[in-house]
Amino acid sequence: MTPVNVIKVGGGEGIDYEVFCQDLANHEDYVLVHGGSARLNEVSTKLGHPPRFVTSVSGHQSRYTDRETLEIFNMIYAGYTNKMIVEHLQRLGVNAVGLSGLDGRLIEGDRKRALKIVENGRKQILRGDHSGIIRTVNANLLGLLLDNGYVPVLTPPAISTCGVAINVDGDRLAAQVAVALEADCLLLLSNVPGLLRDVEDEESLIDELSSTELDAHIESVAKGRMKKKLLGAKEALAGGVGRVVIGDARGASPVTHGLAEHGTSIR
Amino acid sequence: MTPVNVIKVGGGEGIDYEVFCQDLANHEDYVLVHGGSARLNEVSTKLGHPPRFVTSVSGHQSRYTDRETLEIFNMIYAGYTNKMIVEHLQRLGVNAVGLSGLDGRLIEGDRKRALKIVENGRKQILRGDHSGIIRTVNANLLGLLLDNGYVPVLTPPAISTCGVAINVDGDRLAAQVAVALEADCLLLLSNVPGLLRDVEDEESLIDELSSTELDAHIESVAKGRMKKKLLGAKEALAGGVGRVVIGDARGASPVTHGLAEHGTSIR
Repeated sequence: MTPVNVIKVGGGEGIDYEVFCQDLANHEDYVLVHGGSARLNEVSTKLGHPPRFVTSVSGHQSRYTDRETLEIFNMIYAGYTNKMIVEHLQRLGVNAVGLSGLDGRLIEGDRKRALKIVENGRKQILRGDHSGIIRTVNANLLGLLLDNGYVPVLTPPAISTCGVAINVDGDRLAAQVAVALEADCLLLLSNVPGLLRDVEDEESLIDELSSTELDAHIESVAKGRMKKKLLGAKEALAGGVGRVVIGDARGASPVTHGLAEHGTSIR
Repeated sequence: MTPVNVIKVGGGEGIDYEVFCQDLANHEDYVLVHGGSARLNEVSTKLGHPPRFVTSVSGHQSRYTDRETLEIFNMIYAGYTNKMIVEHLQRLGVNAVGLSGLDGRLIEGDRKRALKIVENGRKQILRGDHSGIIRTVNANLLGLLLDNGYVPVLTPPAISTCGVAINVDGDRLAAQVAVALEADCLLLLSNVPGLLRDVEDEESLIDELSSTELDAHIESVAKGRMKKKLLGAKEALAGGVGRVVIGDARGASPVTHGLAEHGTSIR
């Protein structure tokens, strides 16, 4: 199989997917992974089931994905966003095929049985959550598509070993796909310029990060979504991926800039 | 390639997809096509964009699919229903892969530029519709999946030659897939027992239909959704499919019953 890059585009506000796809279509040999969180929050609120974010006892924030949230999640990630991106790419002559982690057991993981959370200062056990940790990637199915000229466009959810849909982090999904495909580069693009020294200041970009610095940042600086990106970067590099770039999905040439290491480059 | 059956399950009210999938999982060598209309009507109404049905000058009723409707259509068909079915099948050990007609240009068609409709007795031209007529099926992609042990689970929309998503009728999509795969049998299952002599009386089932009788029924008896099924049956038989059964998707063994020709059998 030809070496590939794995490119993740976030689902936050401020990303123009049409512009993004126009730039993406200038490149070859890649797998795209996408998010959809901003739209999910908007539509689930409209449908009378607003998002609920919980804080784990270890201080991580995450979305509580009950069954109803999971159904709306599928609607937005696998329905709205995935097919909108596939349509853009097809219009540009890219033979995209959109898949969730459920399809062909593409992304398999372990479901978390219960969340240990802290709410109003009290520890609680929260059940009925549909989220989990990725264990395996079906690289055969991806290889089959890539070898036959198709561009895989991937989205959470994943599937548990028992066959239940589970919400998994998109950045870490992209990292696991990059490891499974022995990718040259993992590009994590979202609505920030990269890892910032000061999250309030887009000018405070950290250009480069060594493995040791990465560990330090995972411990200290990074919060929320950026922490997941750094964890993804660590997993990818540990799994043999050549380099990781955390860059900006906004602007006219986000993929070209990212591959040219605009953003935070980690080796 | 092993001979296959093409099985379509409708999206109307009263169908239990979990029960349906349990029966389906007892069979082999098939492609599944599904609808999602009842859920689409429900969710689009909740989202403040209720369905609009129009009557063409030739008397056909259809859904007016403006861009916003198409986006909700993708959410329900490709997101909610497709992934719910894939999850059920995966849990039952069936290696399902869900795809829309956009993916890999699986189902390509011509977009209707404008609808000529009759509203309040007046003829009108309605623009901005995203619907069309199917022209080609990417049988290579389906063959690739089938040959590698995957079960394709297909849903509208299709894609126009210009790369725009178009709403196409699910029964006729199933018919075109059956023709492209040279299927043994096309099974069109929905929330009716088959073709009825009297649409108000579920006991008035017509067991068998010849080609000549089929033409007569297309002209006269059949209305609305049943007309599309009969047109699909005609297209499938003309394209070389061995037999078509229009049957019931409800009950404990809908697929087994359908393949045993419970319903309306057409050769």
